[in-house]
Formats: sequence, structure tokens, C-alpha cells
Amino acid sequence: MSGILYGVGVGPGDPELMTVKAWRLISTARVVAYLAANGSDSTARSIAAPFIAEDAAEIAIDMPMRVEREPAQAAYDAGAAQIAERLSRGEDVVMLCEGDPFFYGSFMYVFERLAARFKTVVVPGVTSVTASAAELATPLCARDDVLKVLPATLPIDRLREELLTAQSAAIIKAGRHFGKVKQVLGALDLITRATAISKATHQDQLIRKVADIAEDSLPYFTTIIVKV
Amino acid sequence: MSGILYGVGVGPGDPELMTVKAWRLISTARVVAYLAANGSDSTARSIAAPFIAEDAAEIAIDMPMRVEREPAQAAYDAGAAQIAERLSRGEDVVMLCEGDPFFYGSFMYVFERLAARFKTVVVPGVTSVTASAAELATPLCARDDVLKVLPATLPIDRLREELLTAQSAAIIKAGRHFGKVKQVLGALDLITRATAISKATHQDQLIRKVADIAEDSLPYFTTIIVKV
Repeated sequence: MSGILYGVGVGPGDPELMTVKAWRLISTARVVAYLAANGSDSTARSIAAPFIAEDAAEIAIDMPMRVEREPAQAAYDAGAAQIAERLSRGEDVVMLCEGDPFFYGSFMYVFERLAARFKTVVVPGVTSVTASAAELATPLCARDDVLKVLPATLPIDRLREELLTAQSAAIIKAGRHFGKVKQVLGALDLITRATAISKATHQDQLIRKVADIAEDSLPYFTTIIVKV
Repeated sequence: MSGILYGVGVGPGDPELMTVKAWRLISTARVVAYLAANGSDSTARSIAAPFIAEDAAEIAIDMPMRVEREPAQAAYDAGAAQIAERLSRGEDVVMLCEGDPFFYGSFMYVFERLAARFKTVVVPGVTSVTASAAELATPLCARDDVLKVLPATLPIDRLREELLTAQSAAIIKAGRHFGKVKQVLGALDLITRATAISKATHQDQLIRKVADIAEDSLPYFTTIIVKV
């Protein structure tokens, strides 16, 4: 009997925004896995840290943060192989995922390598998008509103077209694309309707109106909420 | 000192998909509030039921489910007045909200009536959209994907235009609009890429491929996940 692979959303940052199910699975896990960017600490692991058993085995997938695709693919191959070894021995593996595993998460790269061979269970989590709206004390969407989640990496024309027909938008991963985002929002006269929230619900969360931000680059985990 | 109004997301249905924070607030609440459609039981209350203290006071906002806008507004006025009375006495009130309070939730109608007068804290929750993707074992969105959340109440042309430029879509509240949704998906040759999930993570959850559904009406809480 093989073990079960659990892809577990740990929520946006505040450990209390983890689900009860995530808490139960993490606190009883014998093997936890997570991505660690450039060998440094993992955000998902740091959110879940209060709940991980001291004697749990850990699989840190060391992810080189480069523009090229190949080194990341090789890291996922190696990480998936380590997880598969545990699963084959009948051990369950809990993979920690920031936010929700299937919402712009890197869990999908592990999932696509292992789901055909091993039983896989995904535990959804609170995303940074609704957590941002809660922190801003602003309803995100209601009634017939169209909500769009727009990666800031999109070409400027695409961002413009999508914003033109949205009632509400969350522009995610703004980071070094913030200059472009500001330009689009300015062209559409939406600057005063946009708020940037970096590291939502983390202890170092930062909220600023887009109109008040001079710089062109922000932390990677920055979401811009736009009420059109 | 007035009390605090908590808008608490209880998640999509499975009580274990409630956050630890929601669980803490609900289990210690002295006053809970929720909507009850047509005087019947409330979905949000039934999700939270295992955690509500036996001697907690309850404010059930009786919501007439009619097409006209006025009776609902009157019910929100009356419910908000009952909540305000408790808050004015210094009592905290925990309002239970399905999914996430600011994600197409009716909490906003209470929020807009009370947030200017009382301290309000919103606790985000897992939405039915990411819960549906988890249940379908299908990544919802990744990389540069644009995700759109589209209420099924939208006009048919709007649905068509938005689907044309999405990589991933969640059509929510399909219910009696399902015939229209099927028509749009057919015209765009997306029927085989669409799955309907009713009452995600509830005990009576139902998953069907849209191609296999003959009828034109489904339960209100049905989400159609489309991977374009």
C-alpha cells in the first residue's frame, strides 16, 4: 500500500488562517515537504512551523530562483522523486503550500509528476486575494460583479483590456511589474481605486494606496485590489 | 465601549475547512448571527453548528427569498438593528458567512449598515471556487493564467465575451441559469472542458461533467469550472 500525497493550503500568512483540516494533517504528519527558494527558509513552512512535529521528517525542495525554466524543472523532478520514495514505502507526505495549492501554486508541478501514480488529496486554503480584501475592509465582489485575477506578468495591453471589463480585480505577484501596473491603472483613470497590499496577514504586512507609491518595484507577494 | 462585529467566513461546507481563527471566534462567541432563508435553517449556521456554544444567543435574520429588492432590504435593516443593539451594549457579535464574507457574500449588506458605527473585523474563508478545484483534482490556475469569476446571472453575451479571453473560469450560482450557461459553453466549444459541482465539500456534493447533464436547472450553489 502506497502512502497518500496531501497538498495542503496553509493560507496567506497568519497561521490562524489555516483550516482546521490543514492544522490536523500538518500536526500529525510524519513527513512534510515544501519549496525553499534558493536554499533559504520556506514561506509555507514558516506559516505552518508552530504545528509541525519536532520529529517529523522534512523534504525541502531547493528551488533555484532563475528566469530559465530548466533548473526549476530539474528541482521539481528531484523533489518529486524524494516524495515518491516516501509514498512508495507507504508513508503519507504532507506538502505545505502557501494560500491554496491549486490557486497559482507551485504544488501543481509536484501534482502533475505524481498524481497518476499515487493517491492525492488537495486541501483548499484561504487565498491572498480574499485575505487582502478582509485586511482592506473592502468587499471584493458582490451580485453580478465579474472578478478577475490578473497576474502582473501579463502584457500591458492584456491588462488594460481585462481591467476595462472587470468590476473588481486582483492583480497578483505585482513585485517588479508594479511600474507597468501603475501605468495601466493611470491610463484607465483607476489609480485612486487601487490599493497595494504586500504580504497580506503576515506580521510585516504593508498596505498603501497605489496613488501614494513612487517606486516601480514592490515585494513579490504584493496584490493590487482594484474596485473598478 | 461598543462590541466588535466579526464577519466570519465558515468556508464552503465541510466544517473542517473552517479556519482556526473562525473556529476560535465561533466557539467562544456569546452572540452569533446568520441569514435564514424563508425562515428555514441557515447553511452557514449548519456548517458552524458543531462549534456554537449551547448557551450562545442567536440572531437569525429571516430573509424572504423573492425577486423584489425591498423585502430583502427591510430584512437587512431589521437584522442590522438587532446586531447594533447587542454591539451598543458592549457585546461582540459573530456573523457566520458561507465561504468568505467579502466574496459574493451577503455579509456586505450588514457591513454597509454597521461598519461606520462599530469596529468590524472580517475573517476570510475558503471559497467554493478553490474548494471545487480541490474536489475536482484539477489545478484552477497557474503562471500567467487569467482566472475569471462569472456570476451565471450575467447576460449571455457578456458570459461569452469573458469566456473568450479567460484561461480559467468559475461560473458561480449556476442554479436556474444553467441552461444559458450550457448554451454559451456549447457555442464556444467548451462543453467538454466544463464540470459542474453542486454543494462543494457538503455531504451531498454532486460532481458531473456538463456534457452529461440534460436538465436546464441545477441547485443554486452550483459552480461550473471551465479550463479553457
